[in-house]
Amino acid sequence: MLRLSTLFVRTLREDPADAEVASHKLLVRGGYIRRAAPGIYSWLPLGLRVLGKIETVVRQEMDAIGGQEVRFPGLLPREPYEASRRWYDYGPNIFRLKDRKQADYLLAPTHEEMFTLLVKDLYTSYKDLPLVLYQIQIKYRDEARPRAGLLRAREFIMKDAYSFDIDDDGLGVAYNDQRIAYQRIFRRLGLPTVIVSAMSGAMGGSRSEEFLFPTPVGEDSFVQSPGGYAANAEAVTTPAPAPLPFDGVGPAHVENTPETPTIATLVALANERFPRSDRPWQASDTLKNVVVALTHPDGTRETVVVGVPGDREVDMTRLAASVDPAAVEVAEDADFARHPELVRGYIGPAVLGINAPDPDNAIRYLLDPRVVVGTRWITGANTAGHHVFDLVAGRDFAAAGQEGQPTVEAAEILDGDPAPDGSGPLSRARGMELGHLFQLGRKYSTALGLQVLDQNGRQVTVVMGSYGIGVTRIMAALIEANHDDRGMIWPVNVAPAQVHIVATGKDPAVFEQAEALAQDLENRGLEIMYDDRPKVSPGVKFADAELLGVPFVVIVGKGLANGVVELRDRRDASSREIPVDDAATTIADLVALAQAATELPPGETPA
Amino acid sequence: MLRLSTLFVRTLREDPADAEVASHKLLVRGGYIRRAAPGIYSWLPLGLRVLGKIETVVRQEMDAIGGQEVRFPGLLPREPYEASRRWYDYGPNIFRLKDRKQADYLLAPTHEEMFTLLVKDLYTSYKDLPLVLYQIQIKYRDEARPRAGLLRAREFIMKDAYSFDIDDDGLGVAYNDQRIAYQRIFRRLGLPTVIVSAMSGAMGGSRSEEFLFPTPVGEDSFVQSPGGYAANAEAVTTPAPAPLPFDGVGPAHVENTPETPTIATLVALANERFPRSDRPWQASDTLKNVVVALTHPDGTRETVVVGVPGDREVDMTRLAASVDPAAVEVAEDADFARHPELVRGYIGPAVLGINAPDPDNAIRYLLDPRVVVGTRWITGANTAGHHVFDLVAGRDFAAAGQEGQPTVEAAEILDGDPAPDGSGPLSRARGMELGHLFQLGRKYSTALGLQVLDQNGRQVTVVMGSYGIGVTRIMAALIEANHDDRGMIWPVNVAPAQVHIVATGKDPAVFEQAEALAQDLENRGLEIMYDDRPKVSPGVKFADAELLGVPFVVIVGKGLANGVVELRDRRDASSREIPVDDAATTIADLVALAQAATELPPGETPA
Repeated sequence: MLRLSTLFVRTLREDPADAEVASHKLLVRGGYIRRAAPGIYSWLPLGLRVLGKIETVVRQEMDAIGGQEVRFPGLLPREPYEASRRWYDYGPNIFRLKDRKQADYLLAPTHEEMFTLLVKDLYTSYKDLPLVLYQIQIKYRDEARPRAGLLRAREFIMKDAYSFDIDDDGLGVAYNDQRIAYQRIFRRLGLPTVIVSAMSGAMGGSRSEEFLFPTPVGEDSFVQSPGGYAANAEAVTTPAPAPLPFDGVGPAHVENTPETPTIATLVALANERFPRSDRPWQASDTLKNVVVALTHPDGTRETVVVGVPGDREVDMTRLAASVDPAAVEVAEDADFARHPELVRGYIGPAVLGINAPDPDNAIRYLLDPRVVVGTRWITGANTAGHHVFDLVAGRDFAAAGQEGQPTVEAAEILDGDPAPDGSGPLSRARGMELGHLFQLGRKYSTALGLQVLDQNGRQVTVVMGSYGIGVTRIMAALIEANHDDRGMIWPVNVAPAQVHIVATGKDPAVFEQAEALAQDLENRGLEIMYDDRPKVSPGVKFADAELLGVPFVVIVGKGLANGVVELRDRRDASSREIPVDDAATTIADLVALAQAATELPPGETPA
Repeated sequence: MLRLSTLFVRTLREDPADAEVASHKLLVRGGYIRRAAPGIYSWLPLGLRVLGKIETVVRQEMDAIGGQEVRFPGLLPREPYEASRRWYDYGPNIFRLKDRKQADYLLAPTHEEMFTLLVKDLYTSYKDLPLVLYQIQIKYRDEARPRAGLLRAREFIMKDAYSFDIDDDGLGVAYNDQRIAYQRIFRRLGLPTVIVSAMSGAMGGSRSEEFLFPTPVGEDSFVQSPGGYAANAEAVTTPAPAPLPFDGVGPAHVENTPETPTIATLVALANERFPRSDRPWQASDTLKNVVVALTHPDGTRETVVVGVPGDREVDMTRLAASVDPAAVEVAEDADFARHPELVRGYIGPAVLGINAPDPDNAIRYLLDPRVVVGTRWITGANTAGHHVFDLVAGRDFAAAGQEGQPTVEAAEILDGDPAPDGSGPLSRARGMELGHLFQLGRKYSTALGLQVLDQNGRQVTVVMGSYGIGVTRIMAALIEANHDDRGMIWPVNVAPAQVHIVATGKDPAVFEQAEALAQDLENRGLEIMYDDRPKVSPGVKFADAELLGVPFVVIVGKGLANGVVELRDRRDASSREIPVDDAATTIADLVALAQAATELPPGETPA
């Protein structure tokens, strides 16, 4: 029984200064977690109870699909991460350290390498497969901007599972098992999720999906189509229009366009001075060239220009996904200083990539997929106050993008953009990534040499999948989904207790009755929080009950004179009086009913 | 059910190359743990199961004394450890790192500072106390020589509890609660322990005890007296003899003693050339001066000389405890080079400490407590080939030890030394530290400013205790206590399964029967390991069963033709046939009996 007279908790009336989202505010104010350092939290008794219940649901579903639990260290040697190149690719995003012998270590950001090596260490034959291993373990990322409490922390808990199969069919089965397990986990936790594609078709190959919890405070942006297509904005592939004939287009011509550093000023001037016969010029007729700086894993910094139609911005998150593992940021003055050919506000293809006089030493030029052969553009003429008109893609200029990727997914997705599945317009929303399924294929097994003998005695490379769930993030998502302006509202199956009994007033008989009810309910197997504090006002007790968020609140007080206690539902704030003699039975039935509603029979896939 | 056909385990026939102790060898060979880096291990499914059971026992006993579970981060900011000075005192024994903003962090070696600050953060009044918090959490130490598997690891799991009280009486109660909880934990785990004093009387003040598991592979040395005194060798206080009169002792005289660099050669020469009238000279008549180097937390290195009777060595562990937080090692050539007054083999008090011509700049001289006023010694004359005779302590020389500690506990304890409690001779043994109780008093609360208001509205400093148990170490100790040359022998309450069923041969009927028995036992609530591997020989299966160490082994094979299965006891290797029809009932009864033997009613203190 959690007695508030002794429970290690102090509720706070003020939001923490650095808190922006509800889960961060309420978990700290309710004494569930406490900040130890930026992005690093200590778990107090109430938080640890809820965390344990979330972990139990995750563990049960992993075990149900044959997952075997292991646990890797948090402190890992450099060598495996060097073999996979991630020691370099992670850049400043991992914590690195040296031991007393100056050997390099890192704090585990994820464990693909360690799982791969462990299986290589112990297994040798196709007969050992398939295999699914998982762990629920602490992870570390040195986030540039830790924020939002548990949502972007530097120390957090994940479930990470890995599948090992002899062939792609096996991987498909393992992937689907995990997908169903995830559906069951989020359903049992009462968290709505959207499954979105997390990998663009352009990158080809393996399948990858994310489970997003839709919320305005989510850091991910995703789209959905009327036909059921759903993808993380990073993964959306822009349908390339068909090439256009350009035989009738006259030659490109440079025009004097003074004081047009922005798209809006340029379009206005074009319509005034160089009107089109068929329709007015639009922002989408202009080609905007945005200068960015890439930092490659080896530390080198590269200036790159991204060309997108002028009616949309470059989405830095989408661009970042496209150029990974390089990091990307807006170019700074120093980048421009190194490239005097870039005339700010008037940058055009003629100085970029293969269009430049010296293409081998020119700035790389990445183009939006909409810039197909035959499209004609107004764009910079690389001279202040001048633009070039009727510049035709494929005739007058072309992209020189990354190897095998002549176009780049960098432009923002707009509500109403055509969906890749052709079913209509895309709609955008924000979400929080709670789970990720990823067909790794043979990437890590090749890098680290994980092979087994097949039926014919030949060495074959093992096929792997990786499946993560953010356990501490789920806790934050549960609050984002279940709170009001007075506090948290825990779903019954993860609540720190199912029933919160409040004894009010000073009458010892009230406290005796409340204690008896608490004992009775505990004897029936319920978890009870009991506010037995003798000198605390009813108002403070009620406010605490609302903040702490136990789903059923029972008030034992003056009503006892009439033989009743008050039963409040934390979620809908409804209240009713129930006879004290039947109280335990009534409450136990209610809790059982609520718990039954979260149950999902083994083997059943939620819709 | 743990089916060996799919369980992620590979037993190894060879000991790991770096393994010296049984627990390390067997846990790796049995596939319970796997090395990831020096002193850092991954937990495989079987290891994790056992670990979970040990943690459950520890958690239950902490909860039973009102402990509230929390969990602190593994990655901690520098500031609290700077306030306590431990950032410096730990020297190279902790892992340190910087984040991307160059802020200093450490990997938690223990959490006194964090617990203190958390309570300071939330609590303000005597009414909030007493309070006991605990966690079961990963810890890190950058051991100079990680070895012996889980016994001296660099990443390990500890339960650490902390008590917070308003006064010393409260601390006494909290300390005693923990002491009883520890007795219950080790009794329930079936681990014999000796409770030894861990703090010498010389240091005064707070109480501290260790729970040692007696084993020849233990890194601790402890002593016991016939009267019940027990102490870590580091904590033993040498009873100082009474001062002797020295009026009749003639003046000290230097003698030519060529080729006597050792005590043995010196004693032999003394008896030959300078015989005593009453008895022969003995080693204990000589004063041996041993040169050591201290490295202080600030990095400075200091040469120090320790004087002990010549019949015993300096015990570096005892000396280390005496000079903590300085680190100590045997002096090197460079240390001697800086001190030309030290003539190796012939070092004497005349060049040391307050006896030296320039005491303020002389080497510190620490003396054994047996060197009391009036004792006369043969010792070095600081000239090669010469010793001084009849040098009288308190007349001709004295120690200049640490502040308030004129003598030093550095000499080894020998079997038969008089016990401090006066009850007779000490006996020595080795043990492994599994638990530690420590009355911190006001050290951390003063350093970090943890105060609360008392009944009179005055700020008082909170009194703390710290109580640790090495959870992963317990697992190693369980194997050291329970193994034979064929493998592990798990106590029934922590075994990965209670029953190991082995199906032998190729007859499908045998496997069906074994499967049915396994299911039947599982339905009765037992945990079953089932060796269902179809093409593995009985010899290999039996060897694996012995290595893996499940306490009850059932062999289903040829005996089925006669309606019997074989039941083996892993511990005593006894075997008997039981009718297959009664097998489930017989086995379930046996397991229940074994489990009952480990039970301890709530509130009962083991003898």
